[in-house]
Amino acid sequence: MSDVSDWWRTSIIEMEPGKISFRGYPVQDLIGQVSFPEMIWLMTRGELPGHDEAALFEAALVAAVDHGPQAPSIAAARMAVTCGLPLNGAMASAVNFLDDVHGGAGEQAVELYHQIDDAGGPEKTAEILDRWQAERSRFVPGFGHRFHKPVDPRAPRLLGLVDEAAAAGTVSGRFAKIGRAIEKTLTEAKSKPVPMNIDGATAVIYAELGFPAPLARGLFCLSRSVGILSHAWEQMCQGGRNKGPTPPAYRWTFDGMAPREVPASYRSQKLRQNGQIREDS
Amino acid sequence: MSDVSDWWRTSIIEMEPGKISFRGYPVQDLIGQVSFPEMIWLMTRGELPGHDEAALFEAALVAAVDHGPQAPSIAAARMAVTCGLPLNGAMASAVNFLDDVHGGAGEQAVELYHQIDDAGGPEKTAEILDRWQAERSRFVPGFGHRFHKPVDPRAPRLLGLVDEAAAAGTVSGRFAKIGRAIEKTLTEAKSKPVPMNIDGATAVIYAELGFPAPLARGLFCLSRSVGILSHAWEQMCQGGRNKGPTPPAYRWTFDGMAPREVPASYRSQKLRQNGQIREDS
Amino acid sequence: MSDVSDWWRTSIIEMEPGKISFRGYPVQDLIGQVSFPEMIWLMTRGELPGHDEAALFEAALVAAVDHGPQAPSIAAARMAVTCGLPLNGAMASAVNFLDDVHGGAGEQAVELYHQIDDAGGPEKTAEILDRWQAERSRFVPGFGHRFHKPVDPRAPRLLGLVDEAAAAGTVSGRFAKIGRAIEKTLTEAKSKPVPMNIDGATAVIYAELGFPAPLARGLFCLSRSVGILSHAWEQMCQGGRNKGPTPPAYRWTFDGMAPREVPASYRSQKLRQNGQIREDS
Amino acid sequence: MSDVSDWWRTSIIEMEPGKISFRGYPVQDLIGQVSFPEMIWLMTRGELPGHDEAALFEAALVAAVDHGPQAPSIAAARMAVTCGLPLNGAMASAVNFLDDVHGGAGEQAVELYHQIDDAGGPEKTAEILDRWQAERSRFVPGFGHRFHKPVDPRAPRLLGLVDEAAAAGTVSGRFAKIGRAIEKTLTEAKSKPVPMNIDGATAVIYAELGFPAPLARGLFCLSRSVGILSHAWEQMCQGGRNKGPTPPAYRWTFDGMAPREVPASYRSQKLRQNGQIREDS
Repeated sequence: MSDVSDWWRTSIIEMEPGKISFRGYPVQDLIGQVSFPEMIWLMTRGELPGHDEAALFEAALVAAVDHGPQAPSIAAARMAVTCGLPLNGAMASAVNFLDDVHGGAGEQAVELYHQIDDAGGPEKTAEILDRWQAERSRFVPGFGHRFHKPVDPRAPRLLGLVDEAAAAGTVSGRFAKIGRAIEKTLTEAKSKPVPMNIDGATAVIYAELGFPAPLARGLFCLSRSVGILSHAWEQMCQGGRNKGPTPPAYRWTFDGMAPREVPASYRSQKLRQNGQIREDS
Repeated sequence: MSDVSDWWRTSIIEMEPGKISFRGYPVQDLIGQVSFPEMIWLMTRGELPGHDEAALFEAALVAAVDHGPQAPSIAAARMAVTCGLPLNGAMASAVNFLDDVHGGAGEQAVELYHQIDDAGGPEKTAEILDRWQAERSRFVPGFGHRFHKPVDPRAPRLLGLVDEAAAAGTVSGRFAKIGRAIEKTLTEAKSKPVPMNIDGATAVIYAELGFPAPLARGLFCLSRSVGILSHAWEQMCQGGRNKGPTPPAYRWTFDGMAPREVPASYRSQKLRQNGQIREDS
Repeated sequence: MSDVSDWWRTSIIEMEPGKISFRGYPVQDLIGQVSFPEMIWLMTRGELPGHDEAALFEAALVAAVDHGPQAPSIAAARMAVTCGLPLNGAMASAVNFLDDVHGGAGEQAVELYHQIDDAGGPEKTAEILDRWQAERSRFVPGFGHRFHKPVDPRAPRLLGLVDEAAAAGTVSGRFAKIGRAIEKTLTEAKSKPVPMNIDGATAVIYAELGFPAPLARGLFCLSRSVGILSHAWEQMCQGGRNKGPTPPAYRWTFDGMAPREVPASYRSQKLRQNGQIREDS
Repeated sequence: MSDVSDWWRTSIIEMEPGKISFRGYPVQDLIGQVSFPEMIWLMTRGELPGHDEAALFEAALVAAVDHGPQAPSIAAARMAVTCGLPLNGAMASAVNFLDDVHGGAGEQAVELYHQIDDAGGPEKTAEILDRWQAERSRFVPGFGHRFHKPVDPRAPRLLGLVDEAAAAGTVSGRFAKIGRAIEKTLTEAKSKPVPMNIDGATAVIYAELGFPAPLARGLFCLSRSVGILSHAWEQMCQGGRNKGPTPPAYRWTFDGMAPREVPASYRSQKLRQNGQIREDS
């Protein structure tokens, strides 16, 4: 029956009754010996990271866990538990929201950094940014922030850790250079600060550590799941039933039709309710 | 290979290349001949309904399609598209919310009606209600409404259609009797109106038509999916990026810790960042 | 507090205590008078359809309800209930799967038809198909089928209904012409039949009736939700706990690393378990 | 506007432009200083753990990351990406599956351990197990395994770490005692081994560390999200379009109706297609 066994094929996990190994390592040898970030790296990349790489990776995971109840994903998680969802359902509902606009910025920033890197490096920043804004989106992923001005407090801290790691030879530092070049170019173009934000900073780290762009989104989801779980649990403890987005008294603004009557040709359908088809109304 | 073919087993659909039949009926004979509610009935129940049953069923599906942006499911759908989700993702996120508290009331009302029916009928209402509130929940599903006072406009209309169907012999009318008995008992107990709401009214219809209680929740999901899709599409046309639940300026209330310093034993971990384990801090 | 009320703005539903209207029509006047497809059209488009338009629309909704347990969405729904999910959670999980590859074909086909229509009509078919395959995807949405050969039984039936509607002046018929032109062009190019499938056929109907492409995906989700609900309910009645995709004895094919030992530098971390940081291993 | 600000209330995160703090700690002081498990603990519990507690917690998170493509959640994640879902959507779909039967065992085991602890300790095991099986479920959460016989390799390793931590005074060890008492009682009752499994073992750790039962489910979701992400990413790299659960040639077993004709009273509805209501068929 090998065609059935072959239908799902993986290099991640091997199992026999009583035995589990991940990427070749017996699970009982990983438990209590590798850290959770090292396990995440092993599972997604296939090899254990160096300890210095793992430290930088861990910093990125810690940095992005939450941004408060104004984030749509967090609001979704909180509303979900008031609808009766258990924690897995609230987490699922919220992680689904981490899509192109809400969670995709890190993935897109990694793509952008690689485009600049492939084109030759920081000197190509302005040219690549122009192309990105013409072909992809007028929004440059990873820079600027609707709320945090002048600076997103997580970004300088993360970049500082990248600088230390580059000085120690753990990473090359070339994506940090690219990130800073983008920040400089955007700031000059707009004559006002356009600082790197959490997505741009974690993207520097993921690019430095060799994670492909789509995985950057997945890792952001792992990280943000922590805040999602925390807020869902807190709301579960606070209580509430069917909580809507705003206090109910505010309802919503209706900008549609004035009241009107259902047309006559529909009212005639009332006659079909007991199975008789009659031509009159 | 029959064990593999047997792993998924169904009476709903049979297929050969070029042929599809649902519950025994060739699909091309159903298309353009049975209505969408008749198809829903056929797929979930296994047989086509009578035309009068179908009319009552259709009324219930139409009645529950939406309740506006204050409903958590609708808010979720609207926020989801501003995060970049396509319509299937927005619909999925929102339907997930229709759980025990937000979508389960219809299912629970059908269970309650059957408990009273099994106990002997409307005379047992007070007794069964007491038991429900003691063992299940202090909330009686299907009655009362946070917003619609004195009456949920959908309920009397639906009950009127049930009365017509009972008069015509299409349904027995005994669950309408039970629903009205609950309304009367609750109203007397609280000395104020506790009217049947949309969940209680559609539950009368689903019970009259013989739908098991869990299917009542599924049918509510089909119905509410219409409002969910409509609101998601409207928001997609309105635009917006990462829309949170309230206008951003309101942020949220923080009721936690005053600012504090990370303890010393954690600051020492900073020394492990470049792989060197040192005892000093 | 109008900025809070304005934060969510809709033309779909207006509400006061005791009153609900959809697109201007009081809900109690819609219940029992408009059909479920007419309600779907009203909610998504803003106006009631003509009765002939509604009949064609209903045929499309009926046609796409299910394609059996081999469809990933249906498999997901069935597995979900064996994990303990209630029907809303199973439906949500499955509808999420109706994304670009599994549910997006109808949306993409509507886009393709409009590209040909905007370019001048069926004579431009080959040119626009070449452009689509160069710029979008080598897969032409709506044509061919992995399973149904020589023909998807739903497509000719739906096209026949479109032809009748065009003859009656209900629709123009120009998108049916375009769909047939694509089928002819692809069949000639591959020297074997490449018939229109369910996505291509429902897309003809949605285009003829004026639905924007993204709504075609949403409507496919509404339709497929019926099969999803039916299969989830059937599996719930069959039982099963934590059902995997294949019978468990087949496990999966492992094509990864041979067994290996966790490196020494990780084994040293075992010493940190009780909080003591020691340099030796 | 304080009622709007108060609508969402949290102790988890406080923010001003340029400032973010979690549970009172400035984010830039947490980044690079606390580990990811320490951050998870802080966010969910409100305080940082001791380092020894954190090590045990980390072991539990590492242990539960994956169980292979036969797990419904993993299968869902893999199928989802072949439908076109990005990684957040695949993760969301899969985490939704971690419900009462697939992810709830750890939560239920924590509840069971507390019931025995509240009743007086291990001597009450048989009595509480009888009550559980009578009132909750015949399945005892956390013990036995369909696949891993005689032992789930993750459980003894985790219990060993608990024993070390108890010896060091980090935890009391009383839930490990309870877990072992359950294993002994079940094994004697069935005259065959019924070993503690991963859910029972992580539940011992979460109970020892003071996590409430529902949070045990949330933490299992965080942990399993790692395997979900890894499998989704691997499948994304392998390719595949609309992958069903089994190889397509196996289809499914149909056990329904023989082919039959749509009844005459439905065929008459064909006449309503062009808006004319005619009595004849």
